Amino acid sequence: MSQFELSEKNRVKRVHKRGSYDKKTVYDIVDSALIGHVGFVVNGEPFVIPTLIARQGDHLLLHGASSSRMMRHVVAGGEVSIAVTHVDGIVMARSVFHHSINYRSAVLFGTGRVVDGASKMEALRQFTEKLIPGRWDDCRLPNDVEMKATAVAEIAIDLASAKVRTGPPGDEEEDYALPYWAGVVPVRQVFGEPIADDRLPGDIATPDYVLDLINGSAK
Amino acid sequence: MSQFELSEKNRVKRVHKRGSYDKKTVYDIVDSALIGHVGFVVNGEPFVIPTLIARQGDHLLLHGASSSRMMRHVVAGGEVSIAVTHVDGIVMARSVFHHSINYRSAVLFGTGRVVDGASKMEALRQFTEKLIPGRWDDCRLPNDVEMKATAVAEIAIDLASAKVRTGPPGDEEEDYALPYWAGVVPVRQVFGEPIADDRLPGDIATPDYVLDLINGSAK
Repeated sequence: MSQFELSEKNRVKRVHKRGSYDKKTVYDIVDSALIGHVGFVVNGEPFVIPTLIARQGDHLLLHGASSSRMMRHVVAGGEVSIAVTHVDGIVMARSVFHHSINYRSAVLFGTGRVVDGASKMEALRQFTEKLIPGRWDDCRLPNDVEMKATAVAEIAIDLASAKVRTGPPGDEEEDYALPYWAGVVPVRQVFGEPIADDRLPGDIATPDYVLDLINGSAK
Repeated sequence: MSQFELSEKNRVKRVHKRGSYDKKTVYDIVDSALIGHVGFVVNGEPFVIPTLIARQGDHLLLHGASSSRMMRHVVAGGEVSIAVTHVDGIVMARSVFHHSINYRSAVLFGTGRVVDGASKMEALRQFTEKLIPGRWDDCRLPNDVEMKATAVAEIAIDLASAKVRTGPPGDEEEDYALPYWAGVVPVRQVFGEPIADDRLPGDIATPDYVLDLINGSAK
């Protein structure tokens, strides 16, 4: 299945032409992000928490302290909505009304399931490798106490949609004659030069996979 | 009042030392952001939507299409949770467990109220000036049809907290001897050179306030 099912829940209501239910479009947005914003309901009240995300197939992996409100909700099978957003530009139109931003956003809906037992270490490996490819084999792996303190969950992505705006402002035809500047100010996320820890011995060079991370397109 | 009240709802549960209820800390995070993620509950189900934000005192202004799900919820007085997040770095520790990110995040709780009548145009002015200082007087203002299509709401910020991580990895003491690279890869959001609209007459130069926006610290 290359498209998400369309329902009232994930239907893009405003500016339909910007909406998409295409899995590749949604997953590209998710995969190029470091974090997502997880929304959930506790006692009827909304909560939104930013957290690191890593996709595996049709699941989203989350991790966190076992005792955190978000992880307790998610591992208990709670429903979540997760938004992943990239801001790409500020769009300045000749009219206030047509000001906008260029962006790529995805909103996912699903329920959580705890990842435990034999699968948990593998999920943590996938999580780490997704965020920093090459790192897992170059650091100390979790011990029993650390494994216990960390909860891992996977969210089955049941429904999702993407919404994308690109390009110049779209002004009313008669406004193009107005004497106002119009255009786009690009916005992007960039990685800077790595800052080695003060206590790092001088003979440990910055690994290639860290340089690759920086030189690749910023996540 | 320079501090938010502390309640079960906004208490930072994990890594208390990173939490703050100081208004200035929370508002600095909000004011340096372009967007927030708004969480709300419809029929018991969670939704999260990214949207532009602008703070005015102890209120957060939101705007959007009058017909959008989020704006309908907010103008009806619905409860929201709004997260504002800046990612500042990827923190690579010697152990998987102590990997982290540097970030500044704020989570706000409140209820919405429609801004209408005489206050609405002023709220839109404040919104625009917050995001692009100087722009309001250099573009065409909304006409009646456009005003009707746009909903403006203010959220009274009842409760909030900030959570901030900065600095190098914090490894277990015995791990500092391990032969793994450790440090921080800085992440930041930057503005690029403005791209003038193709249909802009050649005699309209990029305004100073656009250059100021770019040369200022990126929002």
